[in-house]
Amino acid sequence: MNKQRKIGLFDSGLGGLTVLHALEEKLPGVDKVYYGDTLHLPYGDKSDEAIRSFSREIVGFLAAQGCDVIVIACNSASAAAGSMLEESFPDLTFINVIDPVVAALAGSVPRKTALLGTRATVRSGAYAKRLAAFKVPHELVALPTPLLVPLIEDGFLGSGIEESVLEHYLNDPSLNGIEAIVPGCTHYPLLREAAAKLRPGVDWIDAPAIVAEAVDSVLDAAVDGSGSTTYYLSDATPSFLALASSTFSIKAHWEKKVL
Amino acid sequence: MNKQRKIGLFDSGLGGLTVLHALEEKLPGVDKVYYGDTLHLPYGDKSDEAIRSFSREIVGFLAAQGCDVIVIACNSASAAAGSMLEESFPDLTFINVIDPVVAALAGSVPRKTALLGTRATVRSGAYAKRLAAFKVPHELVALPTPLLVPLIEDGFLGSGIEESVLEHYLNDPSLNGIEAIVPGCTHYPLLREAAAKLRPGVDWIDAPAIVAEAVDSVLDAAVDGSGSTTYYLSDATPSFLALASSTFSIKAHWEKKVL
Repeated sequence: MNKQRKIGLFDSGLGGLTVLHALEEKLPGVDKVYYGDTLHLPYGDKSDEAIRSFSREIVGFLAAQGCDVIVIACNSASAAAGSMLEESFPDLTFINVIDPVVAALAGSVPRKTALLGTRATVRSGAYAKRLAAFKVPHELVALPTPLLVPLIEDGFLGSGIEESVLEHYLNDPSLNGIEAIVPGCTHYPLLREAAAKLRPGVDWIDAPAIVAEAVDSVLDAAVDGSGSTTYYLSDATPSFLALASSTFSIKAHWEKKVL
Repeated sequence: MNKQRKIGLFDSGLGGLTVLHALEEKLPGVDKVYYGDTLHLPYGDKSDEAIRSFSREIVGFLAAQGCDVIVIACNSASAAAGSMLEESFPDLTFINVIDPVVAALAGSVPRKTALLGTRATVRSGAYAKRLAAFKVPHELVALPTPLLVPLIEDGFLGSGIEESVLEHYLNDPSLNGIEAIVPGCTHYPLLREAAAKLRPGVDWIDAPAIVAEAVDSVLDAAVDGSGSTTYYLSDATPSFLALASSTFSIKAHWEKKVL
């Protein structure tokens, strides 16, 4: 009894595409639906109630498209809406972007690790609380790095300016002696090259690959789809579509869908 | 019959403080009330309807504090809510941050001028439309510079990074040969020094001083207040208060007031 499965992903905007890319690499044959809630971006600025309300609407839409595995491809939504979604949609399987990464940290050699995130993610303490449950002596230092998302969204990758800004953050005294960096926002994996150049000895945690691994583990062994991906956005400005094409390498058609 | 007047200013956050500083210099004896709608910041991301609704609530509050001259110290609110507010509050005098600057441009020698603004302000075309009404051959080139507000709000002023980012924007081919720059966002006057260093021959329009001049012109000749300023915020995070104190030099007490 081999059921065909379909993966739905959502984010407030384009950041979740880093997770989609990892899924396409890991699970090329599975059908996927991506929803970018660009009408309400950024989630990092919104209240938990608002994020829960947006997330519930989106998951209802993805379920109606036939998705039975949902990837919450946004740190703010993972922290604010994860458990509510699991309760509201008991028939769906959820993977968020925080738990698999925390589990990977807990299972690795304890070392001083930097968590870079938006102000909202750092304030939520979501990573630290979940890591604490594992009772391992892993030192996690969270630093809010709020300029990184607008920097990426304004197309500054490759300008060299992203390195100056990242350097400024990594020079924060609280990060002295770090051995690893967790990109605690789905945009940040795009800064991997800059980080490798600035801190060649520091391990950059490949969060999208860890999340894709977690998705793979909940799927049936034999998944048999066409490997198609459908893209939906709740709002689309020309600058946004240009960014999707350039920075996130999405040349496909986006359908506008307000929920 | 010399009526005492009181000035109310509002912005989505701290940017309007550049206008407040200019008013304090120009009109030190007048009482002022500042309202920063930090719960809803940034206005640049919101719909016109939402901005109108926020603005109406705030102006009602400022009027209840005795303010009879209202400075809309935010470009997004000036563009989206200016005429609605004038109709809704016929007893109040309104000064927005766009009209006085456009009038100053129209009255000066025609020259190629750059307007730097948020995406929303540039998209609104508010400056170009109002300038067109003057029928002067002034060439205004609008460029969206969305990284500048987060850059200022994340405390990067003085790091040198603000110069790299501004240089990146000023190198846009559309700005070749500009002779003046209009800071089309109330945060941007804080970049005056960086701009002077990068483009010493280009005139930086002192928008807050022009707005303060316009406010002065609507006041009675003899205004007789204590020159006090009261500050209200609709939301306050520690990082925000630190920014108000450091970047915007406001050491005073802020009162939290949700409308």
